[in-house]
Amino acid sequence: MHSSLLMTNDLMTGEETRRGIPCWYKNADVKQKAMYDAIMIKFKLYSILKKYFSGHHCYVPTLDLFNDVVMETAMGKSLNAMSVIDEGPNLSSFTMHRYNAIVKYNLACYSFQLPVALAMYLAGKYDPEMHRQAKTVLLEIAHFFQVQDDFLDCFGDPGTTGNLGTDIRKGECTWLAVVALQRASPEQRKILEDHYGKPNSESEAAVRNLYEELDLPNTYFTYREENLNLIHSHIQQIPKGVLDKLFFKFMNKV
Amino acid sequence: MHSSLLMTNDLMTGEETRRGIPCWYKNADVKQKAMYDAIMIKFKLYSILKKYFSGHHCYVPTLDLFNDVVMETAMGKSLNAMSVIDEGPNLSSFTMHRYNAIVKYNLACYSFQLPVALAMYLAGKYDPEMHRQAKTVLLEIAHFFQVQDDFLDCFGDPGTTGNLGTDIRKGECTWLAVVALQRASPEQRKILEDHYGKPNSESEAAVRNLYEELDLPNTYFTYREENLNLIHSHIQQIPKGVLDKLFFKFMNKV
Repeated sequence: MHSSLLMTNDLMTGEETRRGIPCWYKNADVKQKAMYDAIMIKFKLYSILKKYFSGHHCYVPTLDLFNDVVMETAMGKSLNAMSVIDEGPNLSSFTMHRYNAIVKYNLACYSFQLPVALAMYLAGKYDPEMHRQAKTVLLEIAHFFQVQDDFLDCFGDPGTTGNLGTDIRKGECTWLAVVALQRASPEQRKILEDHYGKPNSESEAAVRNLYEELDLPNTYFTYREENLNLIHSHIQQIPKGVLDKLFFKFMNKV
Repeated sequence: MHSSLLMTNDLMTGEETRRGIPCWYKNADVKQKAMYDAIMIKFKLYSILKKYFSGHHCYVPTLDLFNDVVMETAMGKSLNAMSVIDEGPNLSSFTMHRYNAIVKYNLACYSFQLPVALAMYLAGKYDPEMHRQAKTVLLEIAHFFQVQDDFLDCFGDPGTTGNLGTDIRKGECTWLAVVALQRASPEQRKILEDHYGKPNSESEAAVRNLYEELDLPNTYFTYREENLNLIHSHIQQIPKGVLDKLFFKFMNKV
C-alpha cells in the first residue's frame, strides 16, 4: 500500500529520486504507466489478504479498514497537493485546520492507526471503544511526529537528520509556515508571499530568518513540551496492558 | 469503477475530451490531482458496497470479485498502453496472443463478466461450474464485440456508428492491425511501419488501402459468421434458464 502511494505521488509531483535511485516512473519503459503499476501493487495487497486471511475472523473488518484507509489517504494526498498550485504555494489555504487535516489523512491514518488496528483485529479485539481510544492517541502521536519532522526539516542538523530540508523550497504546508502566517504582520506576510516555495537559497534564507524573527523555534519547544505531557497522560488513561506499552514504545521511537 | 478507470486513462493518455466535454484532469484546479480523485471515486465504491451489502451473503464474494477485476483491468490497461510507446506503435508487440489478452483484461472482465457474476452472487448462485460457464461465454461475446468495434472504427459508416475512427491515427493494437501484420509481405509491413499511428490523413489512407489490399473486410465477415455460430452453440449448451436468455439478449445488443 505504501509503495503504491509513493509511486503515485512521485509521478504526480515529478520527483526525481526515491531512496537514492530514480523513481519508478522515470524508467524509460514505464513513465505514465506507473499509474497502472501502482494500481496493480495496491490490489495485489487484496490477493495477499485473501490468500492468508480469507477464512479468518479478521478478514472482513480487515478489508473494510484497508478500503477506508486508502480512501482517507487519497483525501490527504489530494488536500496536500491542493496547498501547492501551479504558480507556487497557495498561502491563503495554509490554516491550522487544513494542516491538521493533512497530517491526519496524509500520514496518521495509514502509518499509525492502520497497523495497530490490524493487529487488534488479528488478536480478536473488536471493541469499538478500545479502537476509538487507540485511534485518538495514535493520531496525537502522528501529529507530534509531523510537527517535529517539519521543525527538523528547517532547523535540524543535517548531520543528525540525514537530509537537507526542502519544505521551504517546495512550498509545503508545514506547521512552521502555518504558525508564521498566523503571527505575521502584513510586511512579514509579504516576505512569505515573495519567497515561500521559490527554489533558491536567498529565498530559503529569507523565510528561515523570518521564522527566527517570529520566534518559531521557541514556539516549537513549548508545543513539544505541552504535547509530550498531553500524550503521556492520554496513554496513561488507557487500561494497563499491551496497548499502553506499545504507545510508549512509539513515543520513544518518535 | 468505470469512471475511475476513465479518469485515470484520460490523464495517462492525454485525452482532450470525454463524452463531449473536457476530461476531468483538464480542469485548471484538478490536473495531476485527478489521480487522487480517481482513487477516491474507486474506493467510494467500497463504502457503497459496505453500506448496502455488509450484512448480505454476497458481501465477501462481491468484495473479492471487485478486487480481482480491478487488478485484471489495470493489467489490461497497462498491456494496452505498452503497445504504444513514445515513438509510436510498437508493431512487434502486435500479436494475436497480445490482442486477445488486451481484450480479455481491458474490456471483458469488467464490462461483461463482472456485472453478470455480481448478479449471480446477489441471487445466491455460487456454483463455480456455473460461473465458469458464464465467464467463458461472456469473454467470447466481449471478444466478438471488440473485433466488430475495431472493424467499424475503420470501415463503418460514421453516419451509423456516430464517430470517425481514430484507431489508425492513434496506433492502437486492433484486430485489423494484428491480422494485417500476420499477412503482410516485407514490403507491406514497411507501409505499416511508415504510416501506422501517424496523425495525418495520407498515412491513415495508406493503412486503410493496405487493409483492403489484404482483403481484411472479407476476413472479418468470415470471422464474424464463424464466431456468431460458435457463441450461439456455446449459449445453447448452458442449461435453459435465466442465463442463456440473458446471453442471447447480449448478443442482440452487440
